[in-house]
Amino acid sequence: MEVKLAFVGFGNVARAFARMLESRRGLLGSRHSIQFRTTAIATARHGSIIAPEIDLLKAVELAEDGQSLNELRSASECGDSLSVIERCDADVIFETSPLDPSQGEPAVTYVRRALERGINVVTANKGPVAFAYRELAELAKRRGVQFRFEGTVMDGAPVFNLAEFCLPGVTVTGFSGVLNSTTNLVLTRMEGGASFDEALAEARALGVTEADSGYDLDGWDAAVKTVALANVLMNADARPVNVERRGIRGVTAESLKAAAQSGEAVRLVSRAMTRNSVLRLSVSPERVPVSSQMGAARGTSNVLILDTDLMGDIAIFEADPGVDQTAYALLSDLLTIVKGPKGQ
Amino acid sequence: MEVKLAFVGFGNVARAFARMLESRRGLLGSRHSIQFRTTAIATARHGSIIAPEIDLLKAVELAEDGQSLNELRSASECGDSLSVIERCDADVIFETSPLDPSQGEPAVTYVRRALERGINVVTANKGPVAFAYRELAELAKRRGVQFRFEGTVMDGAPVFNLAEFCLPGVTVTGFSGVLNSTTNLVLTRMEGGASFDEALAEARALGVTEADSGYDLDGWDAAVKTVALANVLMNADARPVNVERRGIRGVTAESLKAAAQSGEAVRLVSRAMTRNSVLRLSVSPERVPVSSQMGAARGTSNVLILDTDLMGDIAIFEADPGVDQTAYALLSDLLTIVKGPKGQ
Repeated sequence: MEVKLAFVGFGNVARAFARMLESRRGLLGSRHSIQFRTTAIATARHGSIIAPEIDLLKAVELAEDGQSLNELRSASECGDSLSVIERCDADVIFETSPLDPSQGEPAVTYVRRALERGINVVTANKGPVAFAYRELAELAKRRGVQFRFEGTVMDGAPVFNLAEFCLPGVTVTGFSGVLNSTTNLVLTRMEGGASFDEALAEARALGVTEADSGYDLDGWDAAVKTVALANVLMNADARPVNVERRGIRGVTAESLKAAAQSGEAVRLVSRAMTRNSVLRLSVSPERVPVSSQMGAARGTSNVLILDTDLMGDIAIFEADPGVDQTAYALLSDLLTIVKGPKGQ
Repeated sequence: MEVKLAFVGFGNVARAFARMLESRRGLLGSRHSIQFRTTAIATARHGSIIAPEIDLLKAVELAEDGQSLNELRSASECGDSLSVIERCDADVIFETSPLDPSQGEPAVTYVRRALERGINVVTANKGPVAFAYRELAELAKRRGVQFRFEGTVMDGAPVFNLAEFCLPGVTVTGFSGVLNSTTNLVLTRMEGGASFDEALAEARALGVTEADSGYDLDGWDAAVKTVALANVLMNADARPVNVERRGIRGVTAESLKAAAQSGEAVRLVSRAMTRNSVLRLSVSPERVPVSSQMGAARGTSNVLILDTDLMGDIAIFEADPGVDQTAYALLSDLLTIVKGPKGQ
């Protein structure tokens, strides 16, 4: 099977995915019977191109050297991202444009337009899932294509796929988790004696922090992920503004010390629970036992605990994720699309 | 779709599954389009019956009252388990016979015979996976049916399905985990000050302990699970005797206290790792940090950490499992079978 791929957004994650894809070209052919070629790349700063076959590694090099993708021979320049989506000849579009956390745009528009054209979409962008999940999932179904987004929460660790493929017949009744790497690194470094500023600088150096660090520190990133999970796993139709949200700026070295004296640690905890048929979503710093799944999530590690009807509580934990784990999410979604929807 | 079900073994797990099935009959119809009827039940002590349609809840009652299933009208008596497997008219057989841990029999024979007849098999029995996985998986493939066994390790928490459905393209390079509930309950109760005998009595009262408690305490159960995981997830062809195995009888109150003073806990840890192309499997008591995924697995809880090439380490954790979680494994496997194999 030959699959034509298009990239909308070509930042760190997309380029790591591109390298992962090319390094496994042989394996994808032999083990999964997938041949692929890249037919379009849209970037914000390096131009946008369309071609029958783009040299993907060469495109990665050009982007990383700060050059224009138009340097690639036999590729034609193609306006902005939206015109790439309108015109590309692709089976799967990988949407990794920068996120506007207050509206989810322009990703929502990009995903909608691609699905309308009958193209499968993989996104690592939380916006479409937090702001327009229901609409986009229905649109994908109507057009007979897939809308996949495993990378939006906990990178490539299976969260949405876990519920979809591994918990048939189960109802998720709530969840809790540590979902934001920046705040978790800051909290655990402060536990170890670092100052807030030192800890934040380390998170920035690791590249896990959003450009606007308030987005992490004030709990917005965790809130958007909480909404994405609730919309998909609990059939909610929530928006980030519906989350009771408190960030970590009020957490002091003293409060961490007091917690430690009781065998506890402070984590920025995302929660979803239903009381009297009302869904309540929250993000706030909480004291949790040091020896618990959330307490054991240190540094950039994440954990999600699903409360279920038939299976009790099960947790999935991702250790020290980096950009390769997010890139894997895109690969995982691609392979899920190629295998086709499960069952009838 | 109508599915005909047969039970080989009708103990606690099978009966809990039978109740779960009946209580969700409406939901299975409306949400999964599954109608089911039971056409055979083989038990060791309550007789074995075959019929066009067996009243499953009535059969559960009879077995729990210690009566013979032959009390059911319109069902005919049918010899032993093997003759039920030979003669039943079923689409799926649920195999939950008692395990002989040294050979995996009679479960291996039962599963083989059912697959040979072209019947899908769901087992909660570790024997077939630890002693004959490769043969049985190939046989199932040849006959175009499924051989599923999610309940053999960590009950219904997705372990095998996680790797099969949620980690496409990933190679599992090793694993570690806490997989035996009895020893974990004993160790954590001893940490809390209970004596070995008190702790074991509690495990027995909870019903999580095998009839021969040496099977748990000496690490056999954990070893069989380690082999099952290695055979399926790492394409090994190991047997329980290949596991370097040490149980928990040597763990003393003093050694637990010494560990605690270093912020550590003792867990019976299963490990698989490959060094110089040689797979090494082990089960032994190890000191782990209290604040780690394994340290946070207390009481009957289990955890499995998969080491992977593309996704780093990911862990799955099951909190305080009981018989309903094992029953769910059978339901999960049934739904997986009904949906059909994923993709091409």
